[in-house]
Amino acid sequence: MKTVILIGALGKMGKAALTGLAKHKVITAGRSGDVDHIVDITNVDSIKALYEKVGHFDAVVNTVGYCEYAPFTEMSEAQWMTTVMSKMMGQINLVRIGQDYIADNGSFTLISGILNVKPIPYAIADATTSGAIDTFVKCVAYEMPRNIRINVVNPTVLTEAWDVYGDMMPGFEPVPGRLVGKAFERSVDGFITGQVLFVDA
Amino acid sequence: MKTVILIGALGKMGKAALTGLAKHKVITAGRSGDVDHIVDITNVDSIKALYEKVGHFDAVVNTVGYCEYAPFTEMSEAQWMTTVMSKMMGQINLVRIGQDYIADNGSFTLISGILNVKPIPYAIADATTSGAIDTFVKCVAYEMPRNIRINVVNPTVLTEAWDVYGDMMPGFEPVPGRLVGKAFERSVDGFITGQVLFVDA
Repeated sequence: MKTVILIGALGKMGKAALTGLAKHKVITAGRSGDVDHIVDITNVDSIKALYEKVGHFDAVVNTVGYCEYAPFTEMSEAQWMTTVMSKMMGQINLVRIGQDYIADNGSFTLISGILNVKPIPYAIADATTSGAIDTFVKCVAYEMPRNIRINVVNPTVLTEAWDVYGDMMPGFEPVPGRLVGKAFERSVDGFITGQVLFVDA
Repeated sequence: MKTVILIGALGKMGKAALTGLAKHKVITAGRSGDVDHIVDITNVDSIKALYEKVGHFDAVVNTVGYCEYAPFTEMSEAQWMTTVMSKMMGQINLVRIGQDYIADNGSFTLISGILNVKPIPYAIADATTSGAIDTFVKCVAYEMPRNIRINVVNPTVLTEAWDVYGDMMPGFEPVPGRLVGKAFERSVDGFITGQVLFVDA
């Protein structure tokens, strides 16, 4: 049994990840609500405080990253930066800071999203930062100390979120959260590293 | 003959690009030195001023993007952000702002770099932002108005820069600037869009 910090535990993606973490001790974290620890991944002090408070842990599973959606012609610098500082730098900082706290042979599992390989309108900032995170994971895996691994789950839309996003995504087939949970499980319990785990139908 | 704004004209990559732009009217730009216009791509006002001063243009060719190099374990938040705001957001802003100024049927050509697909030590920020730019170009091409095209040249190290970078890049084969110039030429003079033009040996 591993101690796993699950960030975004109350969201739909967090619940999906949780289905793959049943055999572990899961410490929940998120921006608000009924979680073990409050954390804002856009704030490095908040990330440090989370790791300090948890103490020993073997894995970090992140399921959050806020994105702004707009046509490229209308997307402002501020909308770009909000997305970059959350979905991209927020996740990079989880790893950058976390590498000093995580146990030997630990693992980080980040989240991206299918829109970097299946583009749709309004999603350019999501797609660009997902591309950044997929690339980051593939390259940084070679630098992780103490046998620490890192992967990223790149899912399509969840069945559980289809009512919200379905209209934006014609021709996409949603996948159930439990299938996405399997990808998180493969990352946390496997020996793979530097992998982009696509979950698509 | 097209009017092409070449950013970073005095650098090694700018000189490489220039070899592919011989048939065009090239307006040179850069941070300093003997160029037609001074521009800092990390400053949106500077980008706007460049486009305003040039007036009519058919193509933007960017060959700059500053990156910090360090092991991931040592790379600071500030080093990450310097790289993100230049190589990634600087280039995105060149397109975001430039789409309002560029002529119908115009083209943008950005620069990334081979280290996102051939990772080496010290280059995680370069690789991550190159991955972001490659993804950005592939996805944003569908959103460009008025038949405007966008591509990115993703070169390996230049023969002309091998004396500087060769020691960092064991097992890499440099390519001559004139071959990289061909990729810029294919982007500016072709009909392709949304392409990552790898130039590797």
